[in-house]
Amino acid sequence: MNLELVTIGTELLLGFTVDTNAAFAGQALAAAGARIVRRTTVADDPAAVRDAISEALARTGLVLTTGGLGPTRDDLSKNVVADLFELPLEFHPELWTALTERFARMGRKISGRNRCQAEVPHGATVLPNRWGTAPGLWITGGRGEVIMLPGVPIEMRGLLTHEVVPRLAARTAGAVVRSLVVRTTGVPESSLADRVSALEDTLAPLSLAYLPSLEGVDLRLTAWNMEPAAADSALQSAADRLRGVLGNNAYGAGEDDLAAVLIDACRARSTTIAVAESCTGGMLGARITAIPGSSDVFVGGAIVYANRLKRDLGVSERILEAHGAVSEESVKAMAQACRERFGADRAVAVSGIAGPGGGSEEKPVGTVWFGFAAADGVGAERYVFPGTRQEIRARAAQFALFALWCRAKSAGA
Amino acid sequence: MNLELVTIGTELLLGFTVDTNAAFAGQALAAAGARIVRRTTVADDPAAVRDAISEALARTGLVLTTGGLGPTRDDLSKNVVADLFELPLEFHPELWTALTERFARMGRKISGRNRCQAEVPHGATVLPNRWGTAPGLWITGGRGEVIMLPGVPIEMRGLLTHEVVPRLAARTAGAVVRSLVVRTTGVPESSLADRVSALEDTLAPLSLAYLPSLEGVDLRLTAWNMEPAAADSALQSAADRLRGVLGNNAYGAGEDDLAAVLIDACRARSTTIAVAESCTGGMLGARITAIPGSSDVFVGGAIVYANRLKRDLGVSERILEAHGAVSEESVKAMAQACRERFGADRAVAVSGIAGPGGGSEEKPVGTVWFGFAAADGVGAERYVFPGTRQEIRARAAQFALFALWCRAKSAGA
Repeated sequence: MNLELVTIGTELLLGFTVDTNAAFAGQALAAAGARIVRRTTVADDPAAVRDAISEALARTGLVLTTGGLGPTRDDLSKNVVADLFELPLEFHPELWTALTERFARMGRKISGRNRCQAEVPHGATVLPNRWGTAPGLWITGGRGEVIMLPGVPIEMRGLLTHEVVPRLAARTAGAVVRSLVVRTTGVPESSLADRVSALEDTLAPLSLAYLPSLEGVDLRLTAWNMEPAAADSALQSAADRLRGVLGNNAYGAGEDDLAAVLIDACRARSTTIAVAESCTGGMLGARITAIPGSSDVFVGGAIVYANRLKRDLGVSERILEAHGAVSEESVKAMAQACRERFGADRAVAVSGIAGPGGGSEEKPVGTVWFGFAAADGVGAERYVFPGTRQEIRARAAQFALFALWCRAKSAGA
Repeated sequence: MNLELVTIGTELLLGFTVDTNAAFAGQALAAAGARIVRRTTVADDPAAVRDAISEALARTGLVLTTGGLGPTRDDLSKNVVADLFELPLEFHPELWTALTERFARMGRKISGRNRCQAEVPHGATVLPNRWGTAPGLWITGGRGEVIMLPGVPIEMRGLLTHEVVPRLAARTAGAVVRSLVVRTTGVPESSLADRVSALEDTLAPLSLAYLPSLEGVDLRLTAWNMEPAAADSALQSAADRLRGVLGNNAYGAGEDDLAAVLIDACRARSTTIAVAESCTGGMLGARITAIPGSSDVFVGGAIVYANRLKRDLGVSERILEAHGAVSEESVKAMAQACRERFGADRAVAVSGIAGPGGGSEEKPVGTVWFGFAAADGVGAERYVFPGTRQEIRARAAQFALFALWCRAKSAGA
């Protein structure tokens, strides 16, 4: 099933707003077997909206619109479509009551200009909006079908997911586009490709895309135009094969956060953790404490930015002078001192040169040392990360989470 | 001057990629007096690309395209446009040499399939691409003009800014759409509106938009269809008037980061700072250390997540038992202990309930106490922030930066 998307808003064309709705709609509809074949964005201008919808209807007969359903003068999309389908607008008292009640719940008095939001083109299906004031509309007529959704992202996403996708999925012949993401980290894209290449032939008919980010490389498997059940089973089986060759480097699926994966692994083993951060300056702690319930596992730590604070934590002047703060010896001492001071089972220390200044031939910008301390001893690893200051720091925080997770898992095995 | 934007890519329609290029182009072109009146997105399909470009040319005679200039089979946009303008493709040896050298610099051998990237429609202007392999193209013919840019964001933005905008700006009659953002924080949107309302009539012909985010409320002033010099002077003068009524709450312009503003203010006064974070768990330190050169000012701090670490820092058992960790007494003790322990001029402590659990009637989720310690004494403030766990934490980190900045400034005044 093919359809077109028309997104309406002067702010979209001027670039004041990034059209994230369009990406959300593309994925959700493709997964249900409905493919957006063209997307058009026009300003809040009745003639432009009318042209875009009319042309899209002529091509596919099915158009989804976002935006232009609010109460202001600019929001004229509904009138344009009613006019295009030659349908009169009818006032729905029950919509007006619901709207009035919604305003009352928020402690606001409804204004007369909201009255237009309770008007519906004759015969249209009203899609109830639990997330805001303007209901969605499904209008059918001689020229085809227009599904109108508000532009506010939370309202648009709620209505699309709960009202539009189920209705369209019930109609599609069965061919869907679905994808599944296997998240990897701790291995560069080129080495990842080497490990996956032997498998690539066996993945057909799925396609495989490499999506590098600061958190690692996501592997996106996509099933194109397959029956829903066959697509899901092919995706699951391919993901299992990928995980088989990737081992620990495959830490999750979809939008899994490595910090949550680490917290779960530590909680299952009753392991507590602490951190000592220099170049990441708190990013590692922030990643961990972003996860609800992280207090079961995370005790806290130290942001030892100045060398004075590294000494205060317990790193000897001798080590700092002989090897510098970015060294194997310093991060080992930091991790050990952190573990003892804060009484955690495991500690990680991070010290590096995030740039833009401070690099040298021996220790270029991007050099980061990681120290690890646990009951069974102390260790360290060194990496040189590419990118800007903020990218180097984000990669270092992600690597620290990864290394902690690998160590916590193997100890419990 | 009106033009249309055609963005090309199957990934865009499927929603695997969010079209951030489109927003960037909209702002940059409007500021130069060229208005995008329609945006069309189509798949990597020659017939769809041809239709979209041909229709856009018929409407405006000037079309900007992004995407479809790479070396793979999918990337056929250049051939489509050459065909549409009935221009033969010509091989440019100097482009091939530059491409070969670029690959060599990255330690890679060029492949024969890249040869097509050195082909140019007869008579087209080549826009040199310093950021990647595919040059931009400016093609003129009987049907109008097509400007083709690659889809990779850094390449598209570089070419648009350095090659396209100057050429179009030289042609425009002078009417531009430009905007200027005044960043505010520490004041809710409704109070902000009260303070700005008296001014609103004097802002004409500029429009004013309120853009709330986790960092505060940005006020965007926009000049519509004005002469460039008049637009800039009206924007500057209106921004000055806004700053006049907003005082400290207006901390910057454009994309200024409050952490950088704080670092600059402290550096100018030779003030050092330290942090003690509970609910923000490192976010505050991460915000500060994201700024290059923050080590001039920031000494570090403690992530005192567990109460055991608050005691270790120097908060007495008595205070924690009598008032709890989220209290005026605790944050004052945390700030004071932090300042003394880490030897900083100023310290801030943050302790709150980020949720989703842990709230009570007396201290609901979102309650955050901030403690401040300096040579002239100790103080505290309490806020209840709305939102999810991550939103509450981000708002708390921003407020801590704001309160530190206000205190650092007034001490130096």
